[in-house]
Amino acid sequence: MTFPIDRALLAHVTHLDHADLDGRALAARAIWSGLVEPGDRVASLAVNGLGVAPALDALIEHWDAARWATALEGTVTPADMELALGRWMPRLDLTASTRALRQAVRCGARLLVPGDALWPTGMDELGDHAPLALWVRGSDDALAALGRSIALVGARAATGYGEHVTMEASAGLVDRGYAIVSGAAYGIDGMAHRAALASNGLTVAFLAGGVDRFYPSGHDALLTRISEVGAVVSELPCGSAPTKWRFLQRNRLIAAASLATVVLEAGWRSGSLNTAHHARQLGRPIGAVPGPVTSAASAGCHKLIREDIAVCVTSPDEMAELAPLAPLQEPTLFDEETYTDDTTRLFDAMSYQAPRGAGDIATRSGLSVIAVQAKLGELELEERVAERERGWVRVTPRKDKEKAKEEAKAKQEETG
Amino acid sequence: MTFPIDRALLAHVTHLDHADLDGRALAARAIWSGLVEPGDRVASLAVNGLGVAPALDALIEHWDAARWATALEGTVTPADMELALGRWMPRLDLTASTRALRQAVRCGARLLVPGDALWPTGMDELGDHAPLALWVRGSDDALAALGRSIALVGARAATGYGEHVTMEASAGLVDRGYAIVSGAAYGIDGMAHRAALASNGLTVAFLAGGVDRFYPSGHDALLTRISEVGAVVSELPCGSAPTKWRFLQRNRLIAAASLATVVLEAGWRSGSLNTAHHARQLGRPIGAVPGPVTSAASAGCHKLIREDIAVCVTSPDEMAELAPLAPLQEPTLFDEETYTDDTTRLFDAMSYQAPRGAGDIATRSGLSVIAVQAKLGELELEERVAERERGWVRVTPRKDKEKAKEEAKAKQEETG
Repeated sequence: MTFPIDRALLAHVTHLDHADLDGRALAARAIWSGLVEPGDRVASLAVNGLGVAPALDALIEHWDAARWATALEGTVTPADMELALGRWMPRLDLTASTRALRQAVRCGARLLVPGDALWPTGMDELGDHAPLALWVRGSDDALAALGRSIALVGARAATGYGEHVTMEASAGLVDRGYAIVSGAAYGIDGMAHRAALASNGLTVAFLAGGVDRFYPSGHDALLTRISEVGAVVSELPCGSAPTKWRFLQRNRLIAAASLATVVLEAGWRSGSLNTAHHARQLGRPIGAVPGPVTSAASAGCHKLIREDIAVCVTSPDEMAELAPLAPLQEPTLFDEETYTDDTTRLFDAMSYQAPRGAGDIATRSGLSVIAVQAKLGELELEERVAERERGWVRVTPRKDKEKAKEEAKAKQEETG
Repeated sequence: MTFPIDRALLAHVTHLDHADLDGRALAARAIWSGLVEPGDRVASLAVNGLGVAPALDALIEHWDAARWATALEGTVTPADMELALGRWMPRLDLTASTRALRQAVRCGARLLVPGDALWPTGMDELGDHAPLALWVRGSDDALAALGRSIALVGARAATGYGEHVTMEASAGLVDRGYAIVSGAAYGIDGMAHRAALASNGLTVAFLAGGVDRFYPSGHDALLTRISEVGAVVSELPCGSAPTKWRFLQRNRLIAAASLATVVLEAGWRSGSLNTAHHARQLGRPIGAVPGPVTSAASAGCHKLIREDIAVCVTSPDEMAELAPLAPLQEPTLFDEETYTDDTTRLFDAMSYQAPRGAGDIATRSGLSVIAVQAKLGELELEERVAERERGWVRVTPRKDKEKAKEEAKAKQEETG
């Protein structure tokens, strides 16, 4: 039996790179993602046990719990299956699924499923609690950068201190080549995203509701910006409202997507402690930033440190130590001394990873914009800098080592 | 041979309770304490190997290094002994020793030696680095209270935050029955002593110079007050100036004298980190109070936490957990409900350990002084409170449980 779904719509929302899945399986994933609440273990066992499309067919054919249990070879008891069917069946409404797909097309969201090249590898470590699918608005670059990302999370009720430290942390980690993952909430989360964007870094926001309805609404502009240059991700289809449960389950995606989680400020019962516990269950490194013991907003961080759940981290360097990156590019090999002071100042003001405009580089280096532009032109010819879409970066010249060797050889022959 | 010493003077400075030592040994200790720098391992081996008076005789008889080494049965090499004699012999001046003793009498200092009832037990754990003697100005109560003391130490360059937290810590620990040990320096140390005094607690200051010359001079009034109700202690005889070396060695006494050490604020190279390392070598629990990562004054604390040398502590309760005390008195057994609200408020304003005046209790309870005095009179008859030298404390009535049982029995007989 084939379930009725608008293939034309589906073609719009599925990513090009679904090498291992046929259209029918993709459509079934999209529908399943709207049937179940995040982290539904039985759904995961059902889908992985029968295959995603056959499992959907079974629902449409109204299999009873006993038949399910038999088909799943005892991995689920009939009683658990009975409960699960009670949760799923009321939502089995293909009109609603089509509506969600249509909405996804409208807002430019796409569907990621396990096996896709851009499917975040960390998700698979969630096992039976892995999401069935992810809905994404954003760039391939941002999704790929999850493999070198750190989650910066914390209280909505952040203090000026917490926001300041978050800003330094986010900018500092971007400069060190990391992408920033967070939950787009007010306070620490929002500052983490904002500071990453301000440093021309890549940032990914995981939402508790559909990616067509940004939450909180006060972060509409911020999330729009993130969806343009980074990525906004949810396991729930378009149209889904955020709920308490979905926020808690969203936190497991933040922990799973990133290499490490840092809690910057958290009250005694902050949701970010929940993210830290998810990271712990996954065996990921966790950092917590200390603060004044007189500040309730740091009490949760101190608790994590006291209970040896988190390492005390006080700087971007210490945060980076939680999940060291292999260098993205070789260090430069040329002789620094052959460059003028202005060149050194220009290089100091630039990054190998984060593109910066000539104006930004001028401010950072203390040189004039005209001087910077002239110098950048020179250095581009020497292959020491390159212009990207969003500004200038430092680069390592190709065959620098070979060149140096050849020159040395030539010199030797001259004198020899 | 008997060395020449003013026995009359010595009688003044020696404590009454020197059960196991004769006058000659005591005098020799007093002299030795002026010959050696704190922590001199060879001195410790010489004094413990030969006995304190014979060792002094050997110095006076100008034994050479080889004879010393033979007498000490190889625990010290002749080369090390040669160096040690080079340190000690220039100081072997019995006139100077007598002058130091005379000065001790003048300022009311007494001599404590190993084996004395009040000799702090923790000192013996220093092994070869234990002090040869301690010079003390203060009360027996304060010395005895070292057995339930916590050291609160930190930077001289304390911030308002650090001083505030220290005040809360010191007062809170006094309320929980602890004595407070510190080094009387400006900043954290001074605040620790002051807050303990303000809470009618016992506090002990360890100095790097003689107890006749208070250092820093700006803490002259504070140290005078500590010597009156607590104790001021040094291993150096009167007249000794504090030096860099003596400060560092003084820190080992602070660590050894207390059950646990808490660092409240410390820069990256603060001397209080040295105290923490001494505590670590002794296997004593260490706590560090976190602070803003933007504050250089908390960098040393964060370092101790990050390196797992110290536990992160954020409240007096967490500090007390480092070295839990057996309760000094049984908890009260009477039925709380039989007391009026005023009695409850009065009890809340009082402590089992720290004596408080009626005026202080009135302020804390929000009752009038007259009401407090009347109530205290009533409760004293009921053996619920008692007046001490420095104020009122709560007490547990004797045989409270037996009384309750008898009453219950009587009632049963009435109704039965």
